Amino acid sequence: MPAATTPRPDPDARWAVVIVTTRTAGSGDDGYQDTADRMMELATNRDGFLDVDSVRGADGRGITVSYWRDPEATAAWKADAEHLEAQRRGVSEWYSAYTIDAGWMVRTAEQPPSGS
Amino acid sequence: MPAATTPRPDPDARWAVVIVTTRTAGSGDDGYQDTADRMMELATNRDGFLDVDSVRGADGRGITVSYWRDPEATAAWKADAEHLEAQRRGVSEWYSAYTIDAGWMVRTAEQPPSGS
Repeated sequence: MPAATTPRPDPDARWAVVIVTTRTAGSGDDGYQDTADRMMELATNRDGFLDVDSVRGADGRGITVSYWRDPEATAAWKADAEHLEAQRRGVSEWYSAYTIDAGWMVRTAEQPPSGS
Repeated sequence: MPAATTPRPDPDARWAVVIVTTRTAGSGDDGYQDTADRMMELATNRDGFLDVDSVRGADGRGITVSYWRDPEATAAWKADAEHLEAQRRGVSEWYSAYTIDAGWMVRTAEQPPSGS
């Protein structure tokens, strides 16, 4: 992961990981939702976790963007034993396709739910 | 946008823009889908456009990640007249909340639909 060694470009930058997945068609849940919920619980409680946005459409495609203090925090989470088992099942059972992109991101605009 | 001036950290890095939106509740379509389709058509045909992933969930939350050659390409698209009008209506009518993050990203993993 070459970008992992890139120094933080801006004091406000957060390390972002974008995961785009397609659920395996016609395979049923097979423990997917329970595991997804558990991974969200574990990730959001980890040291260095900052924020997450996750959406899945009716067509089975999903995007999850998680924000972290630095790439080291995501590397530690990626190596978590329970997470490793979930990644293994994701690749072999739950997802027919996926991409993962990572890099430093800066928030450039925001309108909170209560109005700007 | 401080990160826009950050040099490309890796030869393979792409400039990514992550837009997370929440559709205004109970307001109907109001021309939203036609405009969204038109903006996708315009964006994907612009110079410097590389790729896009977009998902909206049943709860009205959506994530769109677009990938570009460089921040200059996104700046030019942001300033497009038809896009400016769409942005104006998005903020005032279609979205009750949104965030935009941008930065250089590198693809760290991929399993294509046909298998890896």
